[in-house]
Amino acid sequence: MKKMILASTSTIHGEEFLEYLFQEIKNLFFGCKNILFIPFARPSGLSHLSYTKKIQDQFKKVNLSVVDYSNDNDFLQKLNKCDGIFIGGGNTFLLLHQLNKLKLIEKIKEKILSGTPYLGTSAGTNICGISIGTTNDMPIVDIESRLSLQILPFNINPHFYEKNYDSKHMGESRETRIQEFLIYNKQPVVGLKEGSFLKINQENIILEGKENAIIFERNQKPYVINSGFNLKKLN
Amino acid sequence: MKKMILASTSTIHGEEFLEYLFQEIKNLFFGCKNILFIPFARPSGLSHLSYTKKIQDQFKKVNLSVVDYSNDNDFLQKLNKCDGIFIGGGNTFLLLHQLNKLKLIEKIKEKILSGTPYLGTSAGTNICGISIGTTNDMPIVDIESRLSLQILPFNINPHFYEKNYDSKHMGESRETRIQEFLIYNKQPVVGLKEGSFLKINQENIILEGKENAIIFERNQKPYVINSGFNLKKLN
Repeated sequence: MKKMILASTSTIHGEEFLEYLFQEIKNLFFGCKNILFIPFARPSGLSHLSYTKKIQDQFKKVNLSVVDYSNDNDFLQKLNKCDGIFIGGGNTFLLLHQLNKLKLIEKIKEKILSGTPYLGTSAGTNICGISIGTTNDMPIVDIESRLSLQILPFNINPHFYEKNYDSKHMGESRETRIQEFLIYNKQPVVGLKEGSFLKINQENIILEGKENAIIFERNQKPYVINSGFNLKKLN
Repeated sequence: MKKMILASTSTIHGEEFLEYLFQEIKNLFFGCKNILFIPFARPSGLSHLSYTKKIQDQFKKVNLSVVDYSNDNDFLQKLNKCDGIFIGGGNTFLLLHQLNKLKLIEKIKEKILSGTPYLGTSAGTNICGISIGTTNDMPIVDIESRLSLQILPFNINPHFYEKNYDSKHMGESRETRIQEFLIYNKQPVVGLKEGSFLKINQENIILEGKENAIIFERNQKPYVINSGFNLKKLN
């Protein structure tokens, strides 16, 4: 019953916020009257209220309305009533911490599995994997466990990019970091580049958008998949 | 009594492993006969044995010998006997996890505070701060707490680099990530660039090396410090 769009990023270079996803958003949330935005990842420390307003402004452009933000404590109630969910980007540790603190994980999962349309960008995509162990974010708050929504049978690394061999920077590449992850964790990792997204319909998990993606599996050479590839068997 | 070198990176572009630090390593460990290398951060998944051998090879070039690796469980004993400590780079979560698991934190701290010379690179530098909350690494294992050695009165972000305004990548810059950290954490953060290191002698914490560093403090504009600056009052 799942119906989801999981994007690497909310914004691609040179475009406005969410612009490249407008058509997908219209299709995903077609007919929805009560879309709940979950602002807990707070990019650049944006307040929950401001972040929600920013989303409301963009969604208006595709004639969709997003539920007003009032306070953190009514999210369980709002989740019960909503007919669409969007979790936006920011810090993934903070997002997971807050979802656990407000005991929203199980309800979000239940709604997604019963067919409530879900949009995730960046951190909101990351938490649909098995764990947040492949986030790029700093651990700005403590979390009890890295386990996340576990809707996907694998992990995502959003904003993925390939190693730049011209760079003089000696910090680990994304690929090196993901390979280190695979020593201690069994699930595959999808390196999802900016401009690409996963479109999930029932059991199908199709790569869409303008970029390819890189699949990392334990004890295997990473491989490239192209737009249109179905990831449903990856686990 | 502290005597430490805390470097952003083990290696700078175009040079061999540790090369730019050879003179500092010679001075720091002058007279040491029993230097213990702690290999738990495992860069690229390197085994504890291989990582230790790599360090032994480089230290030989400056006539210093590093204790052989035998197994993980004799580190407390080896710590008691050693007269120098080096913790190398790799994954900071893994390093902290292992130090806690083997109950080495207090002993390392005690040795450093009583004057045992200490070298840290990358993850080995990061864990000398208050927490590992400003690491660039992925959370490849669970940790109980982000608190680390707390030798420094601030946090470090190793391999720091400034935002590249020509880049089309939309992921958060280091600066944005650190500013997000400061919303939830009080300690300042030192953005330590590759090629620079902190030289600690008693209470003095001097920035040295070829780059400046950026200081991030809560509710303040970040500012630049140059080589020679003493960070002892930063907290």
